[in-house]
Amino acid sequence: MPTITRHRPFPMEAVPAWDGAADVIIVGFGAAGACAAIGAAETGADVLLLERNAGSGGASGLSGGEIYVGGGSDAQRAAGFDDDIGEFEKYLLAAGGPCADADKCHAYAAGALSHYQWLKDIGVPYRGNYLPGKHIEPVDDSTLIWSGSEAAAPFCDIAKPAPRGHVIQHMGWGGGRPLVDILEQRVRDLGVRIACNVRVAALIADGEKIAGVVARIDNRDHFLRAHKGVVLATGGFAFNDAMRAQYCPQSLSLSDPIGDKDDGLGIELGMGAGGRAIHMDQFFTTCPWTMPESQAYGVFVNVAGQRFINEDCYHGRVTRTAIDQPGGRVYLLLDHAHFSQPLDLARMDIAATGADWREVESELEMVAGTLSATMDFYNHHAREGRDPLFDKRIPILTPLDKGPFVALELNFARSYCSFFTLGGLHTSDMGEVLDGDAMPISGLFAAGRCTSGLPAWGHGYSSGLSLADCTFFGRRAGHAAAAT
Amino acid sequence: MPTITRHRPFPMEAVPAWDGAADVIIVGFGAAGACAAIGAAETGADVLLLERNAGSGGASGLSGGEIYVGGGSDAQRAAGFDDDIGEFEKYLLAAGGPCADADKCHAYAAGALSHYQWLKDIGVPYRGNYLPGKHIEPVDDSTLIWSGSEAAAPFCDIAKPAPRGHVIQHMGWGGGRPLVDILEQRVRDLGVRIACNVRVAALIADGEKIAGVVARIDNRDHFLRAHKGVVLATGGFAFNDAMRAQYCPQSLSLSDPIGDKDDGLGIELGMGAGGRAIHMDQFFTTCPWTMPESQAYGVFVNVAGQRFINEDCYHGRVTRTAIDQPGGRVYLLLDHAHFSQPLDLARMDIAATGADWREVESELEMVAGTLSATMDFYNHHAREGRDPLFDKRIPILTPLDKGPFVALELNFARSYCSFFTLGGLHTSDMGEVLDGDAMPISGLFAAGRCTSGLPAWGHGYSSGLSLADCTFFGRRAGHAAAAT
Repeated sequence: MPTITRHRPFPMEAVPAWDGAADVIIVGFGAAGACAAIGAAETGADVLLLERNAGSGGASGLSGGEIYVGGGSDAQRAAGFDDDIGEFEKYLLAAGGPCADADKCHAYAAGALSHYQWLKDIGVPYRGNYLPGKHIEPVDDSTLIWSGSEAAAPFCDIAKPAPRGHVIQHMGWGGGRPLVDILEQRVRDLGVRIACNVRVAALIADGEKIAGVVARIDNRDHFLRAHKGVVLATGGFAFNDAMRAQYCPQSLSLSDPIGDKDDGLGIELGMGAGGRAIHMDQFFTTCPWTMPESQAYGVFVNVAGQRFINEDCYHGRVTRTAIDQPGGRVYLLLDHAHFSQPLDLARMDIAATGADWREVESELEMVAGTLSATMDFYNHHAREGRDPLFDKRIPILTPLDKGPFVALELNFARSYCSFFTLGGLHTSDMGEVLDGDAMPISGLFAAGRCTSGLPAWGHGYSSGLSLADCTFFGRRAGHAAAAT
Repeated sequence: MPTITRHRPFPMEAVPAWDGAADVIIVGFGAAGACAAIGAAETGADVLLLERNAGSGGASGLSGGEIYVGGGSDAQRAAGFDDDIGEFEKYLLAAGGPCADADKCHAYAAGALSHYQWLKDIGVPYRGNYLPGKHIEPVDDSTLIWSGSEAAAPFCDIAKPAPRGHVIQHMGWGGGRPLVDILEQRVRDLGVRIACNVRVAALIADGEKIAGVVARIDNRDHFLRAHKGVVLATGGFAFNDAMRAQYCPQSLSLSDPIGDKDDGLGIELGMGAGGRAIHMDQFFTTCPWTMPESQAYGVFVNVAGQRFINEDCYHGRVTRTAIDQPGGRVYLLLDHAHFSQPLDLARMDIAATGADWREVESELEMVAGTLSATMDFYNHHAREGRDPLFDKRIPILTPLDKGPFVALELNFARSYCSFFTLGGLHTSDMGEVLDGDAMPISGLFAAGRCTSGLPAWGHGYSSGLSLADCTFFGRRAGHAAAAT
């Protein structure tokens, strides 16, 4: 019998006997897999959903349950934000940076409002209100927050700003779990067969068409036939150290992967079937440095005492840019008015204090005239309401000139920096896995973080982009697989 | 008949008839392919070398013919440099940064001196002398130059510095062509069969073993059997815009790829056969900003007027770091003593001049107190022989305080930035192409820039690393293929 490996499809002619079959087999029961199952089942297909763990969730279940939606939602309009689809699409493209998939940005910009309505139709509750300020996730059950860099340079000059993070009504952090619960209910209502504690070991190929999977169930290989297609929805590779070393070594300094042991299985299965994995060096990271909220008003400097970003952009963009700085650490500078004890979670320590910035500089063992000159320059212009270096804007732009002062250290070897990977299979905007000629691999589909999708670029990530991508393109992948 | 595609091996059972055969088939006749052919033929194997163009060369033929060799060569010893293998290996690891392949660094550190002797034995001439100073390639026929960041921070603190660029004796730039000519002569002397104007279209697989290639010759597909193995040596993907967009989009701003239309064929063939392509986001780039040599004494600032690197490190490391800066351009600042007209090739224009740095700053439309403060700070410490920000060292560290002053613009949309890609197939230190489990794919080998090798990291590239990798690991790949 041929080897059963994730790196090469198992030839169908070698299948000893089928242990089961479905029209569409979905691998992974996070938001992407759930939506793929729904998308397939809604067309009437017989769907089998396989999950490695004991139940649904994946990385989505551990998330904030926030979905990036623009173009003029009820919550946006109620709060007086005049968003439109064109500006929304421009932002999606800018957030994807050099890795943006224009087809997916266009498809999602055009479809996001009806997708949001669909989420509501299947029972996802939204309170509908707007919560101003700088938040990672709402601490109450509010809906609409600024969840990216929309109002910050250069994005605010590329696309008219609007808040677009739409959070499920759920008190406090962690709305991902109730979101997945609702998706799961819909999956069950549609009669999808769910099998948990099932580890997919290989795809099965009938010539050039993917025709099933080999799944390990109760310590035995099961050969499961997919008459129409297989949808991979297994997440990224944040927990696969070998893949991180090969594809995304810059992330190796970070020790707080988010996800449900995401091991890159779907990416490897897809590559083994001839799919292409793209933008594999890209990753999201963030440290919750904007909490308490007053600390969002701080200034970051690198070890040379230089600023490096407009700190009013998305916290993840700041953190991602911080990792590019030399020296493995940066400092968050705060004055008396804006300092509070940082979250324990952040593991950001006080590295220096001082009555003036010169004292802070000296305590950090920086050369005289580095940090202090940076802050003199910053404060001088902040008092005029300008940041000529990085275009940080009011109200986050504010002088930090009333001591005592403090420098918090964000040290990538010690501080908390959550991260997950963004690179993955190259897919069409219908969820087809594409080969080197950008042609679909027959019978193979994928969605979520085992693909490169809307959240393609670490420096442009905005909260809610990944769940938007998982749910929207998950549904489409399920539809497409069932329509094969 | 199954499709003939680079993305999937052609099944041997579908081969209508063999049009030819060899023990080992080499694809590509640059330095890596030539050395693979030599390595295979020296073991007595019957070798067929296929080249897409009319003759040998590839990117190697367009290079400077410089090979990175350390550990105490005759030229190093004659010039009084006490290099040793351990320090050499440390440098190789540092130059590979987070992408370093420790096995390859170790193998090359241990084998470089005998490899250098082998090059001399087959007729590569070396004058044997040392040329001090800062050079991209020698303008005369000298041998030994500083060709990396050995003497610059942080490398000089990681490994004891020594010059290690060994250049073929050849008057002026362009030693790559005569180097390849000598390799070609050796290839011919060993009786290797050479076929030019042959485009390989697919690999052929006998089950899980690579057993040949499909080659397009005179407009007809030829099925060529490789009894022992196939060695891919087709270079990187600097000329394949679709691959650049998918794997290395940061390079898209650069418009001067180096190479011989390197289109990534070998990488795609290898991936199609189950090989892994790694570190695909990495690329080398440089602008010849250190010529005339006096300009090597300049200081770079970004559009915020900040320095960002110790400018005494390798010109390519400076250029690569410059691309990471915001704004798409940086400025090279020079004083009267160090300015000369830059090379036309560089396409670096004078962006501003001034009697003092404040005037330059103003002419660049930078805010008062940015560039001028940077240069005041720099000059203050340079006069003391220190660079507390980036640890640039004497003699390149020198005050720039005697006007008039000039700012040259290095603009990535306009200036000359040569580049080539560094990512490629994951191979063992014997040249075996490795799959997702890091296991060799039977019958498939690769060398040179279609692999990720010694020059793995754009920020650590040093001149001569790529040819060292091509020639050393090319030979090993040929040996290994013939020994299959």
